[in-house]
Amino acid sequence: MAKLTNISGFPEWLPGEKIVENRIIAVIRSVYESYGFLPIETPAVELLSTLGSKGVIDKELYALRRVQASEDQEAELGLHFDLTVPFARYVAQHLSELQFPFKRYQVQKAWRGDRPQKGRFREFYQFDLDIVSREELPLSCDAEVLCAFTEALGQIGVGEVCVKINSRKLLRGIYESLGLSDAQARAALIVVDKIDKIGAEKVIAELISAASLDSVVAGRIVEFAKIRVAASDVASMLKGLEIKHPLFEQGAQEIQELLRLLPASVQKPIELDVSLVRGLDYYTGMIVEAALTKFPHVGSIGGGGRYENLASEFSAQKLPGVGLSIGLTRLLSVAFEAGLLQAAAPTTVNMLVTVLSEDQRSRANEVAAEFRAQGIPAEVYFKSPKLGKQIEYAEKKGIQFVAFVSDSGVEVKDIVNKNQKPLKEWLATNPVRSPGS
Amino acid sequence: MAKLTNISGFPEWLPGEKIVENRIIAVIRSVYESYGFLPIETPAVELLSTLGSKGVIDKELYALRRVQASEDQEAELGLHFDLTVPFARYVAQHLSELQFPFKRYQVQKAWRGDRPQKGRFREFYQFDLDIVSREELPLSCDAEVLCAFTEALGQIGVGEVCVKINSRKLLRGIYESLGLSDAQARAALIVVDKIDKIGAEKVIAELISAASLDSVVAGRIVEFAKIRVAASDVASMLKGLEIKHPLFEQGAQEIQELLRLLPASVQKPIELDVSLVRGLDYYTGMIVEAALTKFPHVGSIGGGGRYENLASEFSAQKLPGVGLSIGLTRLLSVAFEAGLLQAAAPTTVNMLVTVLSEDQRSRANEVAAEFRAQGIPAEVYFKSPKLGKQIEYAEKKGIQFVAFVSDSGVEVKDIVNKNQKPLKEWLATNPVRSPGS
Repeated sequence: MAKLTNISGFPEWLPGEKIVENRIIAVIRSVYESYGFLPIETPAVELLSTLGSKGVIDKELYALRRVQASEDQEAELGLHFDLTVPFARYVAQHLSELQFPFKRYQVQKAWRGDRPQKGRFREFYQFDLDIVSREELPLSCDAEVLCAFTEALGQIGVGEVCVKINSRKLLRGIYESLGLSDAQARAALIVVDKIDKIGAEKVIAELISAASLDSVVAGRIVEFAKIRVAASDVASMLKGLEIKHPLFEQGAQEIQELLRLLPASVQKPIELDVSLVRGLDYYTGMIVEAALTKFPHVGSIGGGGRYENLASEFSAQKLPGVGLSIGLTRLLSVAFEAGLLQAAAPTTVNMLVTVLSEDQRSRANEVAAEFRAQGIPAEVYFKSPKLGKQIEYAEKKGIQFVAFVSDSGVEVKDIVNKNQKPLKEWLATNPVRSPGS
Repeated sequence: MAKLTNISGFPEWLPGEKIVENRIIAVIRSVYESYGFLPIETPAVELLSTLGSKGVIDKELYALRRVQASEDQEAELGLHFDLTVPFARYVAQHLSELQFPFKRYQVQKAWRGDRPQKGRFREFYQFDLDIVSREELPLSCDAEVLCAFTEALGQIGVGEVCVKINSRKLLRGIYESLGLSDAQARAALIVVDKIDKIGAEKVIAELISAASLDSVVAGRIVEFAKIRVAASDVASMLKGLEIKHPLFEQGAQEIQELLRLLPASVQKPIELDVSLVRGLDYYTGMIVEAALTKFPHVGSIGGGGRYENLASEFSAQKLPGVGLSIGLTRLLSVAFEAGLLQAAAPTTVNMLVTVLSEDQRSRANEVAAEFRAQGIPAEVYFKSPKLGKQIEYAEKKGIQFVAFVSDSGVEVKDIVNKNQKPLKEWLATNPVRSPGS
């Protein structure tokens, strides 16, 4: 008999958890579509040359190989490790078939071959949102992705979410105003990025050693990195810094304009966090990171930012863009563990039609079909044992209503609130609802 | 610059096609959930030992290997090539956590490393539906999967679908009544399975050569294989055959009982096709195959049947089941090509809110938010060029309504029917609808 083990790093939900995952995907999708973002899906697989095109091939990558391929056949395909590289390849490849600005969302699994750790997976769902343009991309696009992202996170039902924003222009403006060279500024970004993990003291020490800064400048940088203000206080805070530097001023003006474009409900969970860096990647303007307010220690559940060019590896066309991504599998695993989310009852119906004898099954099927036609998902019990056993099945699955079919008509019993009504009466008093949708 | 090519066998839709795919997945999902089928999802990956457990490892399999793994590390993981093996492993692994009968649907991609051909893909979506039981599985379950499957296919919007059914018991009963040995009956099944491809003459010849049958018996088998009757004529046809054999009689009784359990709307597209075999696999009772009525030459778009034991490789528990699968990618590619499906307009909204100047953007955002709050997806134009350019964008994307925001209020223009109304009036006369959902 084959051994059955969970493959480490490849999460697998039970049906009640999968129902919740589906519900959350549907919520995010619905918000993103309501803003006009289009769905795309790319293959799980890209050419290794595509996946490696931003430099050398990453060791976290899974390559594919036909089991029966001959020994000397090189692997050519790999599983994508994020949705950004496939998106860039997609846009470059279909450039003439897409309309710009191209607003897309994409919810798919990605794979990484690294060692699994708590909260890190080898297979995981990402939910990406981007706008790219063939011309200049206005700040309205930054505001729109931030708006849709924040609205979606607020509707997932995992409690309060904090959305931190920052600006690469602000950061570079601050560093340049302090006299840092380009190389020093880059080194400083890497060090400041670790402030939540290693603390202010160590950041100062590393800024001195790794970025060759003097202790006064290092101290100043850490002071800036400690700034965290609500959206409503951003303007006065920035003014109070009294930094005169063109890049800083541009960044400050942009971030205020960005906030001005957000409705109050979206501004509420947003704070400007000057320590936010998000790696050295390709971000050039707004950067964003979201966390669970009550569980800040679990870290980022999503983020992204503004970039100068999506597909420089694949196209001569410059494609500025802005995108935010939700780490869905990570978010779910954290939320289930913390009790922020509960697995749903393992059912997609709230109505069980019982069957007293097999002679009656066709009639029971008809009754169930009538429920469905009225938008009430309904299941028919698969055998016809004593009613007690059928009700027990409903109880176990968390199905609230049980229908009894007889010659004199249909009655519906609420097995939670212990009452029973003729079908017509029940239909008149009970809202149509489906636990699975 | 990296080369951009479609990887052969890995289909990729444009947004308008992906919208259709999403709509079809939602339709099938909704039908299946309305019957109480639970969603599950398994990793893309299984242990190679799991994938190979039904015999030797299939050469159509993709194995995974970390790009930077050392040379002597053996691949342990592979991409699943269907959803049946992962489902069997899932049920066996979570046996104590699931409630039985376990009714599940599963819509995921599967991968096969074989040479791509027209209508065959290396990456494709399957949409599977199964019921498994820890005890005996009654015919009501065969009827239920057939019912949900037929209802779903009827709602996809690809025209009329023909659902052929047959029974392994009928077939074996017929063969045994003709005096075939077990080995001859198996050989005959393999030959008869090819009747649509090679024709009756060649089937007779092969039955004589491969199954060692005399020409009279071979002729009789082909006569039976030509039988195709509508559900309403099954009873009289079976009676007219006058075959006295216990297995045939059991099969005949079961198939009539099965049809009796189906509502008239589901019976309509069903025909009994005695040539239907569906390979030699593990089917033991009902077998099913669906095709597009107007495009019979494209072959199966889905099928399945009754099996004796789902997870014999993984569990000592006997799990009889019945399942039907829709080959979604194949169905879509055929339907797009035949013009049965049209790509949707590349938009998820039917309302574009225009922006006359950047000063007005916040107000335009508010107007769009109000539309969304009323269930009307709405997009705001990302810049503020002349109105003509914004309307052109709406036209290109297939957006029917354009909103103009001014100090005196909001007006909505129908750019298809060329009329313009104040917002209130428009809301009163236009149904709320979203093209993307």
